[in-house]
Amino acid sequence: MNNTTTWIKTVTLSPPSLDNNIADSERLSNNLKTILKTNFIEISINILRKISKSLRKWNYCAKCVLFKDNERWMLLEILPPDKTANTFGVAIDLGTTKIELRLSNLETGEDLHQFSFNNPQLKIGPDVLTRIHYAESEERLSELNKLLIDTLNNSIEHTCKSAGIKTENIYLVSIAGNTVMTHFLLNLNPQWIIMEPYIPTTNNPGFFRTTDLGIKANINAGIYIFPNIGSYFGGDLIAGILYSGIYNNENISMFIDVGTNAEVVLGNKDWLIGCAGAAGPALESGATKMGMNAGPGVIDKVKINPQTGKINYTTIETKKPSGICGSGLIDLVAHLFLANMVNISGKFIKEKCKSHLIEIDNIPHFILIPASESATGKKLTLSQTDLDSLIRSKAAMYAILETITKTVDLSPNDINTFYVGGTFGSFINPKSAISIGMLPDLPLESYKTIGNCSLGGASMFLKSDSIINDVNKIKDSITYLELNVNQDFMNNFSGAKFLPHTNKDLFPSVIF
Amino acid sequence: MNNTTTWIKTVTLSPPSLDNNIADSERLSNNLKTILKTNFIEISINILRKISKSLRKWNYCAKCVLFKDNERWMLLEILPPDKTANTFGVAIDLGTTKIELRLSNLETGEDLHQFSFNNPQLKIGPDVLTRIHYAESEERLSELNKLLIDTLNNSIEHTCKSAGIKTENIYLVSIAGNTVMTHFLLNLNPQWIIMEPYIPTTNNPGFFRTTDLGIKANINAGIYIFPNIGSYFGGDLIAGILYSGIYNNENISMFIDVGTNAEVVLGNKDWLIGCAGAAGPALESGATKMGMNAGPGVIDKVKINPQTGKINYTTIETKKPSGICGSGLIDLVAHLFLANMVNISGKFIKEKCKSHLIEIDNIPHFILIPASESATGKKLTLSQTDLDSLIRSKAAMYAILETITKTVDLSPNDINTFYVGGTFGSFINPKSAISIGMLPDLPLESYKTIGNCSLGGASMFLKSDSIINDVNKIKDSITYLELNVNQDFMNNFSGAKFLPHTNKDLFPSVIF
Repeated sequence: MNNTTTWIKTVTLSPPSLDNNIADSERLSNNLKTILKTNFIEISINILRKISKSLRKWNYCAKCVLFKDNERWMLLEILPPDKTANTFGVAIDLGTTKIELRLSNLETGEDLHQFSFNNPQLKIGPDVLTRIHYAESEERLSELNKLLIDTLNNSIEHTCKSAGIKTENIYLVSIAGNTVMTHFLLNLNPQWIIMEPYIPTTNNPGFFRTTDLGIKANINAGIYIFPNIGSYFGGDLIAGILYSGIYNNENISMFIDVGTNAEVVLGNKDWLIGCAGAAGPALESGATKMGMNAGPGVIDKVKINPQTGKINYTTIETKKPSGICGSGLIDLVAHLFLANMVNISGKFIKEKCKSHLIEIDNIPHFILIPASESATGKKLTLSQTDLDSLIRSKAAMYAILETITKTVDLSPNDINTFYVGGTFGSFINPKSAISIGMLPDLPLESYKTIGNCSLGGASMFLKSDSIINDVNKIKDSITYLELNVNQDFMNNFSGAKFLPHTNKDLFPSVIF
Repeated sequence: MNNTTTWIKTVTLSPPSLDNNIADSERLSNNLKTILKTNFIEISINILRKISKSLRKWNYCAKCVLFKDNERWMLLEILPPDKTANTFGVAIDLGTTKIELRLSNLETGEDLHQFSFNNPQLKIGPDVLTRIHYAESEERLSELNKLLIDTLNNSIEHTCKSAGIKTENIYLVSIAGNTVMTHFLLNLNPQWIIMEPYIPTTNNPGFFRTTDLGIKANINAGIYIFPNIGSYFGGDLIAGILYSGIYNNENISMFIDVGTNAEVVLGNKDWLIGCAGAAGPALESGATKMGMNAGPGVIDKVKINPQTGKINYTTIETKKPSGICGSGLIDLVAHLFLANMVNISGKFIKEKCKSHLIEIDNIPHFILIPASESATGKKLTLSQTDLDSLIRSKAAMYAILETITKTVDLSPNDINTFYVGGTFGSFINPKSAISIGMLPDLPLESYKTIGNCSLGGASMFLKSDSIINDVNKIKDSITYLELNVNQDFMNNFSGAKFLPHTNKDLFPSVIF
């Protein structure tokens, strides 16, 4: 008998005899109960229907695929106890904009394939609000659900094909998404999430069968959906906290995930406080006219020589520039500010910007790339409107950090470690983010970028039978700080709407 | 909030607010957890998909259909909290020969309809052995399963129609059957049940969804299948013990259920010993050429005047006699013995039987009804072969009783109360059964007939949310006594093959 910490356990049973004539399914489940230290294991009709023949064929040895959701253990599948039966799992980060998927071997923990694709619901609306309004009828809700399920199934097929395995070998699927996306996935109407008092249908979706959701995998596979704390604090964030590990730390640390929302969690092994706010629109693509997601030709780094005003930049794959991504934008604004071309109120200074500044429809635009240099043949500009939007976003971000730290009598500068999650977060230059007052003025080594941590958490779930306990610990220990009705937050937000901040003492490293 | 002991609980929840913004399903399940004193309640996707809308429509009150199987509580359905939503359950006794079904109201406990019908598998084979051999291939196993499920569905429809309700209002189905019939119901191959070491696929089938089995009821209904102790000690017997109540008694009492097998359980609130043996074939229809199940025209009582040899009998509905049922047969043999027409070895005494005795193919036959009196126009006879068969059966029955009581240092005559179950058991005249030495020589008031107790137990399950605990108590406290390899049983059997017994002291009330 091997007692791995994975969901796969191989057992060897005593064969039955006249003196030991317990039934086949109880023979197996009693053995598993001992291994798993539980007093109940659910066995489905599908397994019952093959257990007697299979156990005899395999001489009463079997590889078991198990699953635990809250209090109940389930036996999902029985397989021959040899190398011929491979078991795989798929972790999914179900984002509003992007969906990312990772295929792993459940026994070895090896990652086999990963890829991301656009959320197919984008064609209905770019944000969840539009989609919720669209889903006013059962039919339209089902349409949104079907879009999602079909695309997930195609992507599961694609990832299996890429790794040379069959979808029938997928036995576990773990999915982390925000509360609204989770509702769409389950075909639950999310309309009450956006109506006061903002009530989801479920906080703990938990376990489902493939047939419950229509997900393509082995017919006996289990699907786990991460819990949420509320309408604005989703399973993606729980998965992110899991991946960051802050819930296990002795010291107080902070985890931030910047996407459409800025999601911030502060805490240690004893307590966690989290909040989420709409801080992100200007930071991801879409807020600036030239903004776009990272890809070939996209400007990801910008430097401006404060003496000469000369602009240096790099693009992804060093292609001709076609746009700018969030991290490039933060670089740009930081250097515009440090070169004194933007003032502390976030307005372009005409005499410093010189010929870079033009007016289009009476709105100042800063020319980053002239038409002659650009891949599109058109100049790439940053408008005053775009800049205002970015500053509101960074102000929201910092105000959130200030508000949440203040609840435990600290300030953002007291935090030792900042885990920065999200694809966007991975590319942020902390120095630039500090320069515009988006992140606190900490030593650069305090910032640890951890990538798509929602996917990371979902993937962790596949690889250990005890991670569910960590998820439940996180879920149970977190306090949600409501920002919408928080006066502190509004005050902090006002102070943060300047570059870097009205209180310059908070940013000693930024040269004025 | 009403805290009934039924599976139906009506709850009133606090409506959500900004300060109390837990999700809808957790709002409901937390309330139920408190009522049910459990830390987990499973809620299916079907319920999740309607819970938010329904709770709002019903002002956060709901009638909940619950279910508990071992450790897990399940919320099967939510309904409006008023009289418009009626919930019903069906209890089924799944016999090898007969199936009996009872429809009850889950809230009031009221029984609405009951009827029985032949097991449709009879057309494949009269006994489980024939059927198991028939089911050698997956296709034939499925054929047997389908026969059963189709007939059950028709009968559920019929019973619903008779009671004026819809099958969609059936939320619980509880089924008690022997181990082989339970396997056929679940489409599990019972082939290993009849091969040493006689291993069923499952001892604890427990909970299923209608879709698991294809049973016609509400889509969210739950199906409970009674556990078995082994291949020869089925869920029907567990249900029977439940119904008899012997597991709750202070005093030691005995429960016997005579059908195809003689099933005997001895015990009290602290312990139970059970055994089952093939004692019944001659007692039910089929073993004698004129034997048949109870029905119009069937002889159910027989008396013979020991002085004159005149035979008196009654038939069901006082129709012309067409056959004899088991209870009539026991009467007949008892009176033949008491009239000295059959000797203690169970052989007809020619000079006493006189003209009643004829030979057909060299085998003595006793003419009970001459052709002129019979409904069939043919004489009804009891052959020496039939008589031998009956005596073997009664001997097996008594030997079982002797063997099982001996294991606790008692004899059958020490038992205070005998619960006699089974349709057949209901009609037995204990005096006659004692006269032939089938039942111990106890005061007649010691015998309590309790009818179809398998159906009774299944029906009890529908009406109380705590009966599952009793079922588990019975299952866990019972010791199975294996008779096939028991030397005591063989000795007892030899002594019991006489009328009433080789040891006449055991039957003082029988006049010799």
